[in-house]
Amino acid sequence: MQKIVVIGGVAAGLTAAAKVKRDNPAAQVVVLEKGSLISYGACGMPFYVAGEIPAMTNLMMTAQGKLRDQAYFRQDKHIDVRTRSMVTHIDRVQKTVEVKNLATAEYSRIPYDQLVLATGATPFKPAWPGVELANIHPLWHPDDAVAIRTGIEQGLFKRALIIGAGLIGMEMAEALQRQKLEVTVVEMREQVFPALLDSECAAAVSQYASYNGITILTGEKVERFTGNGAVQAVVTSQRTLPADLVILAVGAGPNVELARAAGLALGDGTGAIAVNEYLQTSDPAIYAGGDCVENTNLVSGQKVFAPMGSTANKHGRVIGGNLCGRKVKFRGVLNTAVVRLMDLNIGKTGLTEREAKQLGYDYVTATVSGHDKPHYMPQPGRLTSKLVVNAQNRQVLGVQILGDGQVDKRIDVIASVLNFAGTVDDLFDIDLAYAPPYSSPIDHVAVAANMIMNKLK
Amino acid sequence: MQKIVVIGGVAAGLTAAAKVKRDNPAAQVVVLEKGSLISYGACGMPFYVAGEIPAMTNLMMTAQGKLRDQAYFRQDKHIDVRTRSMVTHIDRVQKTVEVKNLATAEYSRIPYDQLVLATGATPFKPAWPGVELANIHPLWHPDDAVAIRTGIEQGLFKRALIIGAGLIGMEMAEALQRQKLEVTVVEMREQVFPALLDSECAAAVSQYASYNGITILTGEKVERFTGNGAVQAVVTSQRTLPADLVILAVGAGPNVELARAAGLALGDGTGAIAVNEYLQTSDPAIYAGGDCVENTNLVSGQKVFAPMGSTANKHGRVIGGNLCGRKVKFRGVLNTAVVRLMDLNIGKTGLTEREAKQLGYDYVTATVSGHDKPHYMPQPGRLTSKLVVNAQNRQVLGVQILGDGQVDKRIDVIASVLNFAGTVDDLFDIDLAYAPPYSSPIDHVAVAANMIMNKLK
Repeated sequence: MQKIVVIGGVAAGLTAAAKVKRDNPAAQVVVLEKGSLISYGACGMPFYVAGEIPAMTNLMMTAQGKLRDQAYFRQDKHIDVRTRSMVTHIDRVQKTVEVKNLATAEYSRIPYDQLVLATGATPFKPAWPGVELANIHPLWHPDDAVAIRTGIEQGLFKRALIIGAGLIGMEMAEALQRQKLEVTVVEMREQVFPALLDSECAAAVSQYASYNGITILTGEKVERFTGNGAVQAVVTSQRTLPADLVILAVGAGPNVELARAAGLALGDGTGAIAVNEYLQTSDPAIYAGGDCVENTNLVSGQKVFAPMGSTANKHGRVIGGNLCGRKVKFRGVLNTAVVRLMDLNIGKTGLTEREAKQLGYDYVTATVSGHDKPHYMPQPGRLTSKLVVNAQNRQVLGVQILGDGQVDKRIDVIASVLNFAGTVDDLFDIDLAYAPPYSSPIDHVAVAANMIMNKLK
Repeated sequence: MQKIVVIGGVAAGLTAAAKVKRDNPAAQVVVLEKGSLISYGACGMPFYVAGEIPAMTNLMMTAQGKLRDQAYFRQDKHIDVRTRSMVTHIDRVQKTVEVKNLATAEYSRIPYDQLVLATGATPFKPAWPGVELANIHPLWHPDDAVAIRTGIEQGLFKRALIIGAGLIGMEMAEALQRQKLEVTVVEMREQVFPALLDSECAAAVSQYASYNGITILTGEKVERFTGNGAVQAVVTSQRTLPADLVILAVGAGPNVELARAAGLALGDGTGAIAVNEYLQTSDPAIYAGGDCVENTNLVSGQKVFAPMGSTANKHGRVIGGNLCGRKVKFRGVLNTAVVRLMDLNIGKTGLTEREAKQLGYDYVTATVSGHDKPHYMPQPGRLTSKLVVNAQNRQVLGVQILGDGQVDKRIDVIASVLNFAGTVDDLFDIDLAYAPPYSSPIDHVAVAANMIMNKLK
């Protein structure tokens, strides 16, 4: 009987396990999770904090309302999920893992034919003085989300300070503002969404956020926290900011300790676990997926560390297929992201202009503002799109779109074009759905494409 | 000086003319339109009839609120647009067109270096007895829309009968129901949306429409109209239906009389003007685009007659580019369509199962229902998708999607995949935007793709 051990019970790990049991019910699958919770929808946590989702357990249910706990996976999926089970060592020669039961402190050894590493990532916690004060949280684990929301409901917080203006930081800014807190975001770099947007697009987001009551401080470094038991203020390079709640959203790093100790190859630039297109590590009996591995950016070909729940789920399905003897590839990612800030939708796929420049592309850009549906229809949304195109071969390199209109649809269309290495001409040609009252593709994205086609002709 | 004559002043013709003047301001461009109106947004007419758009002139304005009339095109675009100017003859040897001024009944002759045929299509008007009675209208020209809406506002109509359950018929059903008329749709074939949906998808639409108060009668032929000056009833193969307003929405045919008289090649199956990928007719000095030409279905390679405003605008841009000496191709269409019926969104791209079967494909299908965003988010939309995939090479052939969720976004993603002849695996792989609160691609379309991948493995 095929014995599969999976380390990590959130997105990639459980998806791989479920895929194996669906396609090959005879396989024995053990999932080892060091925490006490499994299979939670981390992407939904800001919405739970905001009060849009009533309970954290909503994020742990199936669409049919069943709690996705240990019992569910055992009974419904026939997967042996063990929580509070921390793997302490991988023996690649004997093909066993050593497991510490965190409840009993007992050690045991489990043999495997194939092993899956889905060890995730951990949010950075800078060593600033005072960082251990109460009410300073990352937003990574359900425990963080529950602690924040409980404090809000108890009326403990009036002033929130968010450190880091990336995806999680800005989602939390919106969530905490919905909860009527005063919100300030401090970002070390010169702009919000430093990994997502070019500076002029980021400036438009900052302006919108400020206009809507969120204070944005860029180019400002946190130095320490002050307080008495609980945090009371954050001291930056420029001022002291009172705060009774602090969110640390300064990024995350892959959990690679087990992989490194086992001698598996790590990526040079990323530090994440290196995998081939079948998501095998340097040991062919060991697969890895989710936030602990590096990915290939399909546009640039570069290795990137881009932890995303959607990617983790895809990794899980690919690994599951390969564990069943198929040859399933994971080609890579486009660093696609979309995020809501009040009524502003912000999306990106592929490369920004800054990235294109850094990578040495000969490129052209076009930025166009307009409506997202025929202007004669009531309440058209507004959008601004910045398109980046390779001037040598006309290939679309990326797009950034902002506005109160339908950003996500255009991002998905352009992500599809990027997936096939399509050109600016393709962007113009595709027979997309066009009819009022729907938002229309015959719009400023096409206009931007046309501008670029005229520049390149 | 390059002399260009364009016959037809709505979508394709004016787009071609504007593109030429933008890229080559020295060219002399004359647009001859036999009607008195130009450049109207025909796709918006049902929404004008419904009262969602205040005035018909809204459909004739630029986004900046300028009326796109003759004066606008002359002054702002430097295009010599002549309305009520009917071309009666094309002399391909002399390279001239003969024009009748419908106001003065005078004839003149205009020379051309290149000619553009954008003569459009005409709605079918079956020779049923009584078809000339008042208040029997197609919905094709702004005059139709204005007549219908004026009658509604005067309280003339209580019971509307729509003949034909295609795109225009069903859009009008919704529009007239919004105007509080009693609406019945009669369709000769056995289902609604016969060109758009497979029968089981159509049955779901019929059920929804009936539940929402629109009477749908399929498999029923109209035989004649009765009335006294104005229509009072429609007699079908099965019953007499009282009606004080009748909409004829039984399709349209291309306007090819001028082309035929000039000896230009017409498509065998479609009867529309045959063009090459540069949209040149069999006479290289004559281009043609819009509703009067045939298109290539990119999935099947077949020639189709598929008149759509979005396609006409693309044709215009392609023709304009080629008139300026470039080599711009129009590859074809996917027969993409999306339509709203109250809260139900209905979309299609590529081939239905019926079409795949008729064309002899070895195919598999999967139909999946589900939510359009993470189920833990408030108010997820519901969707049902039917995916059709080539079993031989895994290529996606088409999809139909119905539901109150975000149909248009998924249709556009799959249209993009079809544009690149992508496979079911691509559908699963693309790094689409995934984040609540947005509707999620990691949904039933991916599930349908997965089901098919499992069938094909």
